[in-house]
Amino acid sequence: MTNSNKTLRVCVAGLGTVGTSVVRRLVNNQTKLQQRCGRELQLVGVAELADTPGIDRELPSGCRRMKDASDLIREVEADAFVELIGGLSPARELTELALDQGLHVVTANKELLAKHGDELFDRAKEAGKQIRFEASVGGSIPIVRTIREAFVNADVEAAYGIINGTANYVLTRMEQEELTFEEALTEAQNQGYAESDPSYDVEGDDTAHKVAILTSLAFGTRLDLEQVPCKGITRITPEILADARRLGYRIKLLGIAKRDGSQVDVRVHPTMIPEESALAAVNHEYNAVYVKADPLGSSMLYGKGAGGDPTATAVVSDLVSLSVPEQGHWPESIYWADEDAELVPPDEVTSRYYLRLLAEDEPGVLSEVTHILGEHGISIDSVIQHGRSRSDRVPVILTTHRAQEAAIQDALAELKELPDVGDQPVLLRIEEELDQ
Amino acid sequence: MTNSNKTLRVCVAGLGTVGTSVVRRLVNNQTKLQQRCGRELQLVGVAELADTPGIDRELPSGCRRMKDASDLIREVEADAFVELIGGLSPARELTELALDQGLHVVTANKELLAKHGDELFDRAKEAGKQIRFEASVGGSIPIVRTIREAFVNADVEAAYGIINGTANYVLTRMEQEELTFEEALTEAQNQGYAESDPSYDVEGDDTAHKVAILTSLAFGTRLDLEQVPCKGITRITPEILADARRLGYRIKLLGIAKRDGSQVDVRVHPTMIPEESALAAVNHEYNAVYVKADPLGSSMLYGKGAGGDPTATAVVSDLVSLSVPEQGHWPESIYWADEDAELVPPDEVTSRYYLRLLAEDEPGVLSEVTHILGEHGISIDSVIQHGRSRSDRVPVILTTHRAQEAAIQDALAELKELPDVGDQPVLLRIEEELDQ
Repeated sequence: MTNSNKTLRVCVAGLGTVGTSVVRRLVNNQTKLQQRCGRELQLVGVAELADTPGIDRELPSGCRRMKDASDLIREVEADAFVELIGGLSPARELTELALDQGLHVVTANKELLAKHGDELFDRAKEAGKQIRFEASVGGSIPIVRTIREAFVNADVEAAYGIINGTANYVLTRMEQEELTFEEALTEAQNQGYAESDPSYDVEGDDTAHKVAILTSLAFGTRLDLEQVPCKGITRITPEILADARRLGYRIKLLGIAKRDGSQVDVRVHPTMIPEESALAAVNHEYNAVYVKADPLGSSMLYGKGAGGDPTATAVVSDLVSLSVPEQGHWPESIYWADEDAELVPPDEVTSRYYLRLLAEDEPGVLSEVTHILGEHGISIDSVIQHGRSRSDRVPVILTTHRAQEAAIQDALAELKELPDVGDQPVLLRIEEELDQ
Repeated sequence: MTNSNKTLRVCVAGLGTVGTSVVRRLVNNQTKLQQRCGRELQLVGVAELADTPGIDRELPSGCRRMKDASDLIREVEADAFVELIGGLSPARELTELALDQGLHVVTANKELLAKHGDELFDRAKEAGKQIRFEASVGGSIPIVRTIREAFVNADVEAAYGIINGTANYVLTRMEQEELTFEEALTEAQNQGYAESDPSYDVEGDDTAHKVAILTSLAFGTRLDLEQVPCKGITRITPEILADARRLGYRIKLLGIAKRDGSQVDVRVHPTMIPEESALAAVNHEYNAVYVKADPLGSSMLYGKGAGGDPTATAVVSDLVSLSVPEQGHWPESIYWADEDAELVPPDEVTSRYYLRLLAEDEPGVLSEVTHILGEHGISIDSVIQHGRSRSDRVPVILTTHRAQEAAIQDALAELKELPDVGDQPVLLRIEEELDQ
């Protein structure tokens, strides 16, 4: 398999929204790319199981089209394989095959990297090939390049990401229009911002996969995803969003990765953040990653985190980087992890908390609640108790000073036992460290 | 001059805040950099006219120290020359000498690139060497890498930058504490955010130099700086900032570069921007660049735009990129301009405007003002006229719909002639296109 110095031969597997856009951008922008980087990206083959209507007309002459991606890898002479099938299998086997056959791999597959990045990057190292994955986190936001290259001489202390466009769109619309979760989700589905089965996005798994990739990039440590606390947005209500606003916060689904000595604290959950923080202004389908690093202080990258064209642009930028000869010789240690992450034990993580209870509107309830919190060493920052309402239960809203997760969970268990308190209290973390 | 595959030999000219930090980071982070990128950055020489106290103790053994940077370039075997002297001369001659001697150049010198980038990049091309300049715009914000590499397959339509930390600090403090320009500037000087002669920063020249670099990166066109309308922040008052807030805006010193067909519209001026826009939340010494591109929509990069360590981090990231062998073979066309920019004639630029007049508190003044605007085809969006005050002049605040620069300037000239209107009306552009 040979490659002229000036041409990168590309094959693409998976012609969904992103794959189709990659094909179009490679074909339609060939001259422009050549002007800008002096290299030619040549589409030599595509593989897809289903039929993509009309795609044949768009393929350049000589481009092979196959049903089976492994046939494509074996039979077509190429330099790079673009994996846009998603999921674990056959994406994993195809990635391994491509590396073994001497191809670089470009992928948008966050689940594959989060779960098997380790083995795949080892395999790439053995093969002397690269895996590039700018499109796997934050779509068009160049967070991979930025942490790996621009911040090569800085030490990341923490990364906070709004990295799921579906969840952010739903939360934004719930807050702006006082919609319920279900109403906002339906709207997101109608607008094309949510899948018909939205659970991967709204339950936080997508965010967890992406934050695992950020953890590897930022700290060089690999995560056991099973150990990452992960909570989605399905229990957020318009009332909780209104509380947040009254308290000076917004609620965002955050993927958080912080270094804490030799340990890392990695979590995914809906989080209250100060309304004046830069992340609070990230709305609708937009994504952003906020990074604290020594000696840079705070940085943020913001942009479209999903969608065919923005994601395809990231894929093509990776292909261009591969086409610049020998640019591939960054070692894999900075691409991926060289040690296991030791997570801060969840019980020991400290945070400020927001707590919402529905209590019987009886004298003494607030005193019982604050007594229980006090017994667990949790001190209260603010209380909002509404006056009598037509229902016999009224919301009691508390924010706490910094407390340990174990203490707040124990207190919560006791609170649920109180006869005057409902069994569905809401507990959210408050992150204050996001100011400029 | 030879270079082992794994080592980049670096010499640095200019040991001010940034230069000293570059030296320290190269020396102290050598092992870390080697782990992260598999390359060694070796400091082989420094040049400085003045004595930097104590620096000798920090230089590695074998590192040459000279007064004259041209001696350094000629006598020390190196692969890269870091130019941190600033200004045009001798920075220009040293850059040319370094390229001619077969060294790559890394620079933070925005004035040099804005004024002579053209000739320097031609010279680099001839020499087969690179000029890298991540530190010249936005300090630690990787805007050069992002536009050049991550957005290689996108088309930038507009870039709006808050790219002068001094001006942004002054405006932020004026707004937050209702300080005058002079008070906020003195505070900025005491805090180390402003030079003792602050004119390069607060008059907009620094921003103009940086926006010229962004124009080259984004559109591949070179600017005649003389033709770029440039206005600083020295005439902004707490009253104007309060008007902006009342109207739902913030005021930021923006460098703006927009593509308009085959022309470009490039400007530097204090600008009213919607309070909910992402740039409005960029405060104090922070910088941000907001980019609109096809097909990416809006993106923003935010971070520390100045300071020794953040700027040094950008310099070192450029050195690391140079140390990866052959990574340098991106063509210069994308680094710099291949055609002259044709500016939109300033008279033809359209914008919404904010206009503040001090008028005699007489009946009929407002009607005279609106009549003059109407005669010039300028329609009014909103008017705020304050009631009687203790002084005999009261402010009249107007915002207009979109109008041509020529029309508003003609109207302004007539307004100044009115006996009831003072001769110091304030005119600011309103940019509405910064929403998400």
